[in-house]
Amino acid sequence: MLDKLKVFTGRAHPQLANDICKELGIPLGKSEIMKFTNDNSFVRIHESVREADVYVIQPSCQPVNDGLVELLIMIDALKRASVNRLTVVAPYFPYGRSDKKDQPRISITARLVADLLEVAGANRVVSVDLHSPQIQGFFTIPVDHLTAVTLLANYFKEKNIPDLVVVAPDVGRAKMAREYAKILQAPIAIIDKRRIGNLEQVAVDNVIGDVAGKPCLLVDDEISSGESLVSAANTLSRFQASRIYAAVTHPILSGMAPQRVESSPINELIVTDSVPIPPEKQNSKITVLSIAPVIAEAIRRIHTGDSVSILFEN
Amino acid sequence: MLDKLKVFTGRAHPQLANDICKELGIPLGKSEIMKFTNDNSFVRIHESVREADVYVIQPSCQPVNDGLVELLIMIDALKRASVNRLTVVAPYFPYGRSDKKDQPRISITARLVADLLEVAGANRVVSVDLHSPQIQGFFTIPVDHLTAVTLLANYFKEKNIPDLVVVAPDVGRAKMAREYAKILQAPIAIIDKRRIGNLEQVAVDNVIGDVAGKPCLLVDDEISSGESLVSAANTLSRFQASRIYAAVTHPILSGMAPQRVESSPINELIVTDSVPIPPEKQNSKITVLSIAPVIAEAIRRIHTGDSVSILFEN
Amino acid sequence: MLDKLKVFTGRAHPQLANDICKELGIPLGKSEIMKFTNDNSFVRIHESVREADVYVIQPSCQPVNDGLVELLIMIDALKRASVNRLTVVAPYFPYGRSDKKDQPRISITARLVADLLEVAGANRVVSVDLHSPQIQGFFTIPVDHLTAVTLLANYFKEKNIPDLVVVAPDVGRAKMAREYAKILQAPIAIIDKRRIGNLEQVAVDNVIGDVAGKPCLLVDDEISSGESLVSAANTLSRFQASRIYAAVTHPILSGMAPQRVESSPINELIVTDSVPIPPEKQNSKITVLSIAPVIAEAIRRIHTGDSVSILFEN
Amino acid sequence: MLDKLKVFTGRAHPQLANDICKELGIPLGKSEIMKFTNDNSFVRIHESVREADVYVIQPSCQPVNDGLVELLIMIDALKRASVNRLTVVAPYFPYGRSDKKDQPRISITARLVADLLEVAGANRVVSVDLHSPQIQGFFTIPVDHLTAVTLLANYFKEKNIPDLVVVAPDVGRAKMAREYAKILQAPIAIIDKRRIGNLEQVAVDNVIGDVAGKPCLLVDDEISSGESLVSAANTLSRFQASRIYAAVTHPILSGMAPQRVESSPINELIVTDSVPIPPEKQNSKITVLSIAPVIAEAIRRIHTGDSVSILFEN
Amino acid sequence: MLDKLKVFTGRAHPQLANDICKELGIPLGKSEIMKFTNDNSFVRIHESVREADVYVIQPSCQPVNDGLVELLIMIDALKRASVNRLTVVAPYFPYGRSDKKDQPRISITARLVADLLEVAGANRVVSVDLHSPQIQGFFTIPVDHLTAVTLLANYFKEKNIPDLVVVAPDVGRAKMAREYAKILQAPIAIIDKRRIGNLEQVAVDNVIGDVAGKPCLLVDDEISSGESLVSAANTLSRFQASRIYAAVTHPILSGMAPQRVESSPINELIVTDSVPIPPEKQNSKITVLSIAPVIAEAIRRIHTGDSVSILFEN
Amino acid sequence: MLDKLKVFTGRAHPQLANDICKELGIPLGKSEIMKFTNDNSFVRIHESVREADVYVIQPSCQPVNDGLVELLIMIDALKRASVNRLTVVAPYFPYGRSDKKDQPRISITARLVADLLEVAGANRVVSVDLHSPQIQGFFTIPVDHLTAVTLLANYFKEKNIPDLVVVAPDVGRAKMAREYAKILQAPIAIIDKRRIGNLEQVAVDNVIGDVAGKPCLLVDDEISSGESLVSAANTLSRFQASRIYAAVTHPILSGMAPQRVESSPINELIVTDSVPIPPEKQNSKITVLSIAPVIAEAIRRIHTGDSVSILFEN
Repeated sequence: MLDKLKVFTGRAHPQLANDICKELGIPLGKSEIMKFTNDNSFVRIHESVREADVYVIQPSCQPVNDGLVELLIMIDALKRASVNRLTVVAPYFPYGRSDKKDQPRISITARLVADLLEVAGANRVVSVDLHSPQIQGFFTIPVDHLTAVTLLANYFKEKNIPDLVVVAPDVGRAKMAREYAKILQAPIAIIDKRRIGNLEQVAVDNVIGDVAGKPCLLVDDEISSGESLVSAANTLSRFQASRIYAAVTHPILSGMAPQRVESSPINELIVTDSVPIPPEKQNSKITVLSIAPVIAEAIRRIHTGDSVSILFEN
Repeated sequence: MLDKLKVFTGRAHPQLANDICKELGIPLGKSEIMKFTNDNSFVRIHESVREADVYVIQPSCQPVNDGLVELLIMIDALKRASVNRLTVVAPYFPYGRSDKKDQPRISITARLVADLLEVAGANRVVSVDLHSPQIQGFFTIPVDHLTAVTLLANYFKEKNIPDLVVVAPDVGRAKMAREYAKILQAPIAIIDKRRIGNLEQVAVDNVIGDVAGKPCLLVDDEISSGESLVSAANTLSRFQASRIYAAVTHPILSGMAPQRVESSPINELIVTDSVPIPPEKQNSKITVLSIAPVIAEAIRRIHTGDSVSILFEN
Repeated sequence: MLDKLKVFTGRAHPQLANDICKELGIPLGKSEIMKFTNDNSFVRIHESVREADVYVIQPSCQPVNDGLVELLIMIDALKRASVNRLTVVAPYFPYGRSDKKDQPRISITARLVADLLEVAGANRVVSVDLHSPQIQGFFTIPVDHLTAVTLLANYFKEKNIPDLVVVAPDVGRAKMAREYAKILQAPIAIIDKRRIGNLEQVAVDNVIGDVAGKPCLLVDDEISSGESLVSAANTLSRFQASRIYAAVTHPILSGMAPQRVESSPINELIVTDSVPIPPEKQNSKITVLSIAPVIAEAIRRIHTGDSVSILFEN
Repeated sequence: MLDKLKVFTGRAHPQLANDICKELGIPLGKSEIMKFTNDNSFVRIHESVREADVYVIQPSCQPVNDGLVELLIMIDALKRASVNRLTVVAPYFPYGRSDKKDQPRISITARLVADLLEVAGANRVVSVDLHSPQIQGFFTIPVDHLTAVTLLANYFKEKNIPDLVVVAPDVGRAKMAREYAKILQAPIAIIDKRRIGNLEQVAVDNVIGDVAGKPCLLVDDEISSGESLVSAANTLSRFQASRIYAAVTHPILSGMAPQRVESSPINELIVTDSVPIPPEKQNSKITVLSIAPVIAEAIRRIHTGDSVSILFEN
Repeated sequence: MLDKLKVFTGRAHPQLANDICKELGIPLGKSEIMKFTNDNSFVRIHESVREADVYVIQPSCQPVNDGLVELLIMIDALKRASVNRLTVVAPYFPYGRSDKKDQPRISITARLVADLLEVAGANRVVSVDLHSPQIQGFFTIPVDHLTAVTLLANYFKEKNIPDLVVVAPDVGRAKMAREYAKILQAPIAIIDKRRIGNLEQVAVDNVIGDVAGKPCLLVDDEISSGESLVSAANTLSRFQASRIYAAVTHPILSGMAPQRVESSPINELIVTDSVPIPPEKQNSKITVLSIAPVIAEAIRRIHTGDSVSILFEN
Repeated sequence: MLDKLKVFTGRAHPQLANDICKELGIPLGKSEIMKFTNDNSFVRIHESVREADVYVIQPSCQPVNDGLVELLIMIDALKRASVNRLTVVAPYFPYGRSDKKDQPRISITARLVADLLEVAGANRVVSVDLHSPQIQGFFTIPVDHLTAVTLLANYFKEKNIPDLVVVAPDVGRAKMAREYAKILQAPIAIIDKRRIGNLEQVAVDNVIGDVAGKPCLLVDDEISSGESLVSAANTLSRFQASRIYAAVTHPILSGMAPQRVESSPINELIVTDSVPIPPEKQNSKITVLSIAPVIAEAIRRIHTGDSVSILFEN
């Protein structure tokens, strides 16, 4: 059944697409993506995809809206080129944080994105560590929701750190902390802070739980400006954590985030390559684990009709 | 504009519908709902609803599936009777807890319910304290998401209890505890337990945060069997809380729940009447605050085109 | 092509599902169906169904709305588990009698049910002796409309009863009487009564046609309370029919129906097992013919792409 | 509210549209309908319809497909011209007889027509005496199903004919006979014949019920070639009916139908003008009652939001 | 993969369907298409099509609306008969000229037709030389847009006519003239006339470009009444073209068109058989090239999943 | 009826929105639009829009994809805030040039954009001089297609230039030249060039028509890089046009376009302000006419239900 499996990439993260293809042992699909002088995106697929089982790799990363529209245009081009089935592989899902209406008259943009992908012609979606599991319910098409928590937690399991405490940087991440704690058989603590307004300034309050003198593992789905995570690390430091690790699935690392991490009390930050990390954003504190094998195995199983959920059974 | 505003009720909670109509100063719409001998539900609307702005009151309560199908049949009957606009008022939303796929091969039933309501012909939805705010994103039609937190928290604000700690019975409720804490200007604590399997047995672990010698307010969106809440109260008791209150929006109170509450260390449980509480389920520890005025005011504003969000601004 | 054919059952009629699987020579698919303490239904599929051709057996029977919602939840769970094609097998179709608006402001619930099944994710439907053939037109997805008339009529054909008259219990069943009459090469008669109101009390009027001194075969698609059929039998008795048989596809047999049949002038009632008949509903006058072989053969043909209509050619 | 009510007509039955407008006291909307030399239909609306409540009168009549496509084009033109609401008034519904799949691999064309009207942009439908009431369930938009039975039955009620028997020309019309019988307080009889194949040749069998020496009223929803009705009349004659009347809603009267009626034992045929009857199709046996007042009153009530069902309460 | 490929034809152009089947080496699918006496079209498919890959050949030709409705009914019948995939092959697309709103309050009928085909159940469309390429965007399903320009231009390429000028009969055809000019490596000229009103009377103005003393090739997508083309030829004659050829994809040839061509200065008119040309419409000036091989090859490639675009690469 | 009319603007062209509001005599709606640090766009509406008739002004301009996604998010926010009707005003339509599949395996992005706007919740669209009129057919919702041709042509009519020739810069613009020519009662000429590949390099060929010694008016819907227009002007210059004017609706003016125009043989370029022209893009050869009054009048008429097409009658 492995004939007619084809993988294409948008311009968001070609390295990841190449790594996935290498794992699958197939060449990356040929396409041309560019912009006209009027700033309009243009996509052309350069090989026949008629009746093929096609996967498009496009995580959300800067420039976010260019990446999203480019993805929609690719879907339209592939649909009109008569693919058999089209699976969007968006390891970091666009606008995942905008998943609810917590202020009056705002958009639930994650649902909007789900609708855009469906109307453009996507038949399935693969993503990793959605900001909330409810996002899967924004789709009517099947979603394979993969997780990097196993990958990241196992890294620490192998380190075998005594007395480790898993720490959620805010109450919204308490459930993710629970998942890490389950694998690491560790207790959890929660930092009780609130975001104020829309600009992600944070107001650190307090640590709920016992961290003094203990090594801590801060966990989150995404690091963007880094302010939240570093602020959480500072709080842990103030509460006398003995050592501070962090595990984050999606390393957005916008603006001064790498520098913020470097100069923070965080000893090590482990991330995946679900979004690209250019060399200038890397530094000695950041360790990157590849998510490509996990995604490749999922694609292989989706293509052949084997169970995907079995991949994440404990 | 108040002409042609009509409110109908299913068989789930006619008392609430009557209270809402009393607040609105209009009579309850006439309808007939029954079952044929083959157990098929039947609905007939007994007054013209052509071009009317219709609201159907039907929270989810036992028997749940009868209530849901009855609601869908009412919607179909009203749509085919040419209503202008049909708003479903489901203060306790059906299947709100089934809002994600946290096991392989299960349904996201809350999304399914949203689709059922839309395909039957609902134009808008009003609900109170959805299990997760993302459920709003399961709809393409507008949802007015009301809250009873203000109502319930103010009850305690007026009590003016010194040193009160707001306690989330598990990590999933931590955000709701935050909302109560904001109104009551109180600190929060979290009980870190996990549900095991699907039958709601709980395994209480620990209290994260400081509760010894202090009055505690346990908060939740729903009390069903009461096991979770009572278990949380027992834990607080074990951690030497001085007094234990509980505030819960939706009092499902199934099975032995009232007795469990009565014989527990909980001193007072405050709930709304979003679902019916028959006399045999009431006891001296349970106080019921009416949600009817909040819903009636929302309906009035939806009907006249005034802002609803303004109702919940702090 | 017989690999990846999977049959699952809801809780309505597991015996029928087992019989169908036995005919097909495959094991019944593994699943778990139950209710939480808040009366919410829960479904989990316990084996991989990715890319499988899945059939869900769920006729409508008491409790009707539980069965319907359970079916919708199964469909959602299977769709999100990436089945290739999902066929609902509802031998007795839910709400088939509510197929028209014969009073103002009522629902056409059979159409509503069709929409619910489609929006949940069903790709095809198989049913037996729909209350009206127009119900097939309520669907946009293909429906395989099987019939038990051949099965039931042949039972009498083999009895070779001289002078048999096929009798429709009301004008609405006259067409079904025609179909039996065609196979049995018999004349028909019609009982002209009208149902009054919604509670199925009947007002027997008259027999149109000649039945005096002749054996009669009353036919209907469904027996629910049994009042209609027994009333028709009483009328035939009054008009001096020599012997009274009845053939009915769907034996709902609610309430006192079995007793009513037993103490009536009906000599023999032949039904299928399209809905379950618990032992306490069976008695010496009732003969049950299995519909499982017909359904199993239809499933086999749908799965392999062979003609289904050929099964019912005379 | 009577401003902005506009009525347009296709080319099927402009006389009916004019009569309806006269009843409503408004001018007929201006439009141009013609065919290009390549046989393509063309519609242009010649007055502003922006935000208007528009009704398009177009019963199905020869040439049927021209009328249907012309109607769809009018709907599209009006929708794109920004009407507020568009109601299709099709007194004789296109393809109403093709409402079920009674042979393998045929279309349920009445459902198809419902889908075509909805996708083109119709918001509501008004029709008269649908071939089967289930057709209403083919629509998701509201249908106002009017009847001419009251109008036609009252004509005979005023004649006050003693011993009148209402006769259904086949078992499929038995229910309609019941409706006439209810108004006329008369008994019914049924002619048991079967159509063979698709070409409407008929095979008359027998009269079920007592008609000898009595005046009979044959009823049907439609007379097309007239063969069925005349054959039924011949049968009644053979069974010694004393006098034969016929009441039919839709006078298609194709081919030799008028001559057939004229030379038959039918004494009088009463029809409505739901479809046009050109002078050459009229003869001394045919009486036409206008349906325009009934439709005009329905339109007035739909426009103002008053009950339509009240028109047909007995 | 060539098993289960089936080709059916409507009544528009059975000859073309037969020619295509001959090219494919398969028999034409068996079906029955006729009209009832009430002028309703009826379709029955006479062989099993379950899970088949079905192609329906039906170009738009007189009577246009009969052909369109017949096509929709065939689609519905095939969909309900459980085909796997249904491709509409409409070499001359219905209502292609009505592709824009160039007057107020008219229909964009080509878009309407696309919606009708999709709602009826078509999964793909194949067409030849659409009036404008944007019509492809009226569909959400894939369209394979074939062209006859290569076929027709090559006919002239082989004639090797020195100094040939490709002439567009109006500014709207300038782009098509460009395509011919590219293959023939010839210059172009344009006739600048305007159509006045809707009845295709033309007002010839002028030739833009140099044609005196040169052989000219007039090109168009469709010849209907022939007035435009003949008028253009007359203009070329007036501007002293030495010889006048014409190449037109779709030979509608309505009314007096053949005679008009015969008595015009056109020396030779080359067309395809995308629509039927009955013998009485043929004359010595008209040459017909068969489009069947092109369509058959496209069907073969769609069926086997091979590239179709490769057919038209230069 | 002018109450509850509200106009909002995205970040594309606030000046135009302000000018339109000034014409309408209403204040611009209050909203907040910004980007989070992870480059995600965020929109919040700062005033109640419940039941309002809302217009969102957002032409497509650089950065194009940011503008498009921002528009979709605004639509979603407004829809969920319960607007009565939402009209998108996109004077320059996004991706209008991508309106056909003129290469294999590309997107018809203009259709995709239409689908995105509809699925997000737009109820109507207003645009100016769409690249092709067929784009209106990409929508199922009504589109008011305004034109700036009258505005721009009248500018030249008032100049009263003798012997003026309207010139299309390529065959695709010939129809637009016809429209200008009609108002100016002038002859037309066409430049026959082809674009090669996707990067808008042009290959000027020839002038078809007579321009020597005459003043010429080049017309186009959009000027982007300016290469096409300047190349056309150079060709006209080479063919000895006496003076060269240009009229273009949408002044994208990307990159070096202003400088190209300045140093070209074009004497004057007239454009509208359908997209913003920052001061650094303006120069002495470019004259800007405001489109705001035309759009404001259209909005006023859409809001009050008056004819819009009447605005463009000649």
